Amino acid sequence: MDEYLPTLERLIDQFRSLPGIGRKTAQRLAFRLLEYPEEKARAFADAIIEAKTHIRECECCFNLSEEQFCRICKDPMREHEIVCVVEGVKDLMSLEKVRDYHGLYHVLHGVISPRDGVTPDMLRIDELINRVKAEDSVINEVILATNPTIEGETTSLYLSKLLKPYGVRITRLAYGIPVGGGLEYTDENTLLRALKGRTEFDLNDI
Amino acid sequence: MDEYLPTLERLIDQFRSLPGIGRKTAQRLAFRLLEYPEEKARAFADAIIEAKTHIRECECCFNLSEEQFCRICKDPMREHEIVCVVEGVKDLMSLEKVRDYHGLYHVLHGVISPRDGVTPDMLRIDELINRVKAEDSVINEVILATNPTIEGETTSLYLSKLLKPYGVRITRLAYGIPVGGGLEYTDENTLLRALKGRTEFDLNDI
Repeated sequence: MDEYLPTLERLIDQFRSLPGIGRKTAQRLAFRLLEYPEEKARAFADAIIEAKTHIRECECCFNLSEEQFCRICKDPMREHEIVCVVEGVKDLMSLEKVRDYHGLYHVLHGVISPRDGVTPDMLRIDELINRVKAEDSVINEVILATNPTIEGETTSLYLSKLLKPYGVRITRLAYGIPVGGGLEYTDENTLLRALKGRTEFDLNDI
Repeated sequence: MDEYLPTLERLIDQFRSLPGIGRKTAQRLAFRLLEYPEEKARAFADAIIEAKTHIRECECCFNLSEEQFCRICKDPMREHEIVCVVEGVKDLMSLEKVRDYHGLYHVLHGVISPRDGVTPDMLRIDELINRVKAEDSVINEVILATNPTIEGETTSLYLSKLLKPYGVRITRLAYGIPVGGGLEYTDENTLLRALKGRTEFDLNDI
């Protein structure tokens, strides 16, 4: 049937292109959208365009932002001496939910992964180093909060070596995060403990 | 974090309004869309608008169509003497996949359900009766292919009573469809058997 409704087919394909959405689900979602009143469907389409148009990366920490700098970087109440390095924005959001971390962030937008062809130059690593070594930098601690996976550990190891010359304290989240798991799915209490018990980054420890 | 990104929040809300999409999934989908190149995001938004604008109901059988009449109703090779009554377009699509039914359809767009406040006048029932009793009607068989649920059976019973005066053969799909299940999720072989073994609609049978 679908092949005779190219517009429906295109909408289904759009949903299928999203992660974790198979043929059956995409069809269900497309059908639901068809049942929407015109106005509601238009609001959905607008939301996509609006989000895409207005959301960009903070020029300092690469968190998502609707302005040049994100609200965390702009907040004078945050401790600008501490920078927590995370793989992605979702990790940042998980840490923010703890409401106990008052430093800044640096979002790498990925991890070093030879298997997936991700090399250091594809991440926001240069920008992190530049933040730390900048003449007006007040940063005295970098928390390496990559995920406890092989790629995450590798990335932290790499960063720790790069950061060492600048004499900042390099720490990482305490184990307590389930090994092999992700920050995004860690409950807030565990994240809080991992944050409180953070330790010096030790090369011999990996 | 989200609450500081109203455009992102709106996009997440849009995804959440779809069936079976929870907070976490909606967030994941919204983030994926943010990673899209501008052009691809726009294509997604356009697909929603296009589908909504171009797809309407066939004026004869109420199947989805991009024109006044759907390609099944317009097809001179189909048997215009047989009309298969289904609850929804997805059921029609499931039956079409069998590729062994060559009659027409009539999509009710729901079932009679006092619990959900769906009364016969809210379905395309009048239109079905009008098709059967029309002066130029060639219909000699109506297959009642509602789902084997209480509401589906009730609707078929109701239709069979309404259709009786017009002297058409009233049949229904053979059991073979798992009772309590739905047409949409039935495999094609089972559907084929149910179609081949269709029986006379007997009031004593329900």
